[in-house]
Amino acid sequence: MSAEGFFRSRWVERPREAEERTGGELTSGFRAAGVHCGLKDGGGTDLGLLVCDAPEVASALLLTRNAAAAAPVRVCRDDCDAARIRAAVVNSGNANAATGEAGYRDALAMRDAAAAAVGAEPPAVAVAETGVIGVPLDTGSVRRGIDEAAAALASDGGADFSESIRTTDRWPKRCLVRAGGVTLSAQAKGGGMIRPGFATMLCFIQTDAVCEDAAGVLGTVAAGSFERITVDGQMSTNDMVLLQATGESGRALPEGLLDAVALQLALEVVADGEGATRVGRAAVEGAADAEEAERVARAIANSPLVKTALYGRDPNWGRIAQAAGMALAGEELPELGPAEIDAGELGGEKREAELAVRLDRGDGAAHVFFSDLGHEYVRINAEYTT
Amino acid sequence: MSAEGFFRSRWVERPREAEERTGGELTSGFRAAGVHCGLKDGGGTDLGLLVCDAPEVASALLLTRNAAAAAPVRVCRDDCDAARIRAAVVNSGNANAATGEAGYRDALAMRDAAAAAVGAEPPAVAVAETGVIGVPLDTGSVRRGIDEAAAALASDGGADFSESIRTTDRWPKRCLVRAGGVTLSAQAKGGGMIRPGFATMLCFIQTDAVCEDAAGVLGTVAAGSFERITVDGQMSTNDMVLLQATGESGRALPEGLLDAVALQLALEVVADGEGATRVGRAAVEGAADAEEAERVARAIANSPLVKTALYGRDPNWGRIAQAAGMALAGEELPELGPAEIDAGELGGEKREAELAVRLDRGDGAAHVFFSDLGHEYVRINAEYTT
Repeated sequence: MSAEGFFRSRWVERPREAEERTGGELTSGFRAAGVHCGLKDGGGTDLGLLVCDAPEVASALLLTRNAAAAAPVRVCRDDCDAARIRAAVVNSGNANAATGEAGYRDALAMRDAAAAAVGAEPPAVAVAETGVIGVPLDTGSVRRGIDEAAAALASDGGADFSESIRTTDRWPKRCLVRAGGVTLSAQAKGGGMIRPGFATMLCFIQTDAVCEDAAGVLGTVAAGSFERITVDGQMSTNDMVLLQATGESGRALPEGLLDAVALQLALEVVADGEGATRVGRAAVEGAADAEEAERVARAIANSPLVKTALYGRDPNWGRIAQAAGMALAGEELPELGPAEIDAGELGGEKREAELAVRLDRGDGAAHVFFSDLGHEYVRINAEYTT
Repeated sequence: MSAEGFFRSRWVERPREAEERTGGELTSGFRAAGVHCGLKDGGGTDLGLLVCDAPEVASALLLTRNAAAAAPVRVCRDDCDAARIRAAVVNSGNANAATGEAGYRDALAMRDAAAAAVGAEPPAVAVAETGVIGVPLDTGSVRRGIDEAAAALASDGGADFSESIRTTDRWPKRCLVRAGGVTLSAQAKGGGMIRPGFATMLCFIQTDAVCEDAAGVLGTVAAGSFERITVDGQMSTNDMVLLQATGESGRALPEGLLDAVALQLALEVVADGEGATRVGRAAVEGAADAEEAERVARAIANSPLVKTALYGRDPNWGRIAQAAGMALAGEELPELGPAEIDAGELGGEKREAELAVRLDRGDGAAHVFFSDLGHEYVRINAEYTT
């Protein structure tokens, strides 16, 4: 976290009277730990455990929709009570993806070991994994790590937990914020290069707010944050977002708090995308409807021509017109030109650059955040060989 | 053209008893020319003219579906008789895209000037343009170039015409082939970098075969060639393919001749994609239907993770599983692993590498050809600034 504090993006509205804490403190009622169990070479922490000790906990879980979803995602989908998640166990050395039935059994065993270690029912424990794919999970190391992490659980373990879920993220992504009488803490990891090559997003959010419809709240918040970002247009096999709320503060979430935290974390993930140097915001208005606006914004955000223009500081509105026209193939946009496209900030030195397209088809509007495409993306993804 | 001859891809079946000619010869009944009219700096030829002198001509025209289609595309769509195209005029210095109503008038004027110069009805003349976008067309230079080209039209002008439509293609893409008593000549340009950044494909095909359903024939052939390739997943504002058939040989097209020529030209366009060093073929079988197979193949072919793996010679089947799973988001492919994915040729030194995915959902099969993503793509698209 920089000297600017956590809410440092121009696109995030700082919650009113928000007070930030650094250090490893978690929301009251939660404990966490991060240890090295041996899945990562070089001794980095690679196993994290997060537990809620409050009498009641409401939760919600978002999982990747990738059809080749990793084993832990399928365990969460099949075998967890998403509304009553008390604990989560994560490893950042092995994604346990494309590992078939054996991988599923290993993810289940990892989850069950964590449940036993923290004294929770297995369906109340979520499991997440990220790292190398197609390689069997070393469940012996994982079990030892779980026992070690369970013994190390602490109310200020947020920093260790945050470290333990990182792969090649260049900086940690976490916060603790107080506002309106509630506390919210969160830890995320983003699209760093993961051998042999997925960009997986994991995010854990804890609060003492009362959250009666956790799934609805998380769905709405994610739609404006985690589902509005792209690094390389690729959907991971392992993405997961977990929200846990104890209700112990007796207060509802202040308006905008969770949205701001989720959006800042999502923007950190983009800013720390593989090889990224700049973040763009593609905003489209005047589309026939919101769905069409999002389709156009995504086409712009995922265009390698626009992404290289962002990297190269080239205010190239022509590439934006081309991408918009591709998204609306078969329609007619003959007048789309520099008067309808603001591309100036693609040039210049702003690290967060806006571009805007005004169509004349209706009232639909949408935006998507995206990273640039530069040499470092190619180096990371091409020069590394499995 | 290399010493190997025109049909040099492993994926192209050489037509039986095909005889190739080098040099600038065109199919009998056609003349062409290429001149420098001043749109390109440095004196390169930038205006091409192609005319059919036969008493009868059947033709078909494929145009980009991009909603922001360039002015010449809209002129062809609105003002040409696609089934009776006698001549084509092309410039390779100015795409005349995103130029609004004035651009439309300029494209129309260019087309009408060419019609007058070759003595054809205006609706029998197609117009194509490629190059810089958002810049008014210098119609004075274009008119002078048309007059000069009309005076230079020659039956061996195929090489000059082919040169005149190039932008930054690294090599010319053309052929003259005789087989089964018919002659077929063709000239194409591909996805070289075009200031400020479109990869436009233009292709002109001439034959003396009898072609009763030119539109049907071209549609079928394009579906197996030009519509089966991707460089960076971006649809140009200016793409055009023109087929002209005089019928003077009195014979039908021999089976496979046009398919082979179109596929070889399409593969040349991929191989000469921006910064490309290798070409991949993503083949999917066992999908629920052909549409689903194509969706999966395109997701693989357009994945920057797969494209960088092709560049980096990394036989990374995990990235292929991830892309396939993304294309089938919401479905279940839990067993997709190395036994179902052949990625070996991504490694190694073959310039044309195959990868295959076997699903277990039905009989649908499809394949897509794609270029790799390397440093040169980034250099071309990022380091050049408008």
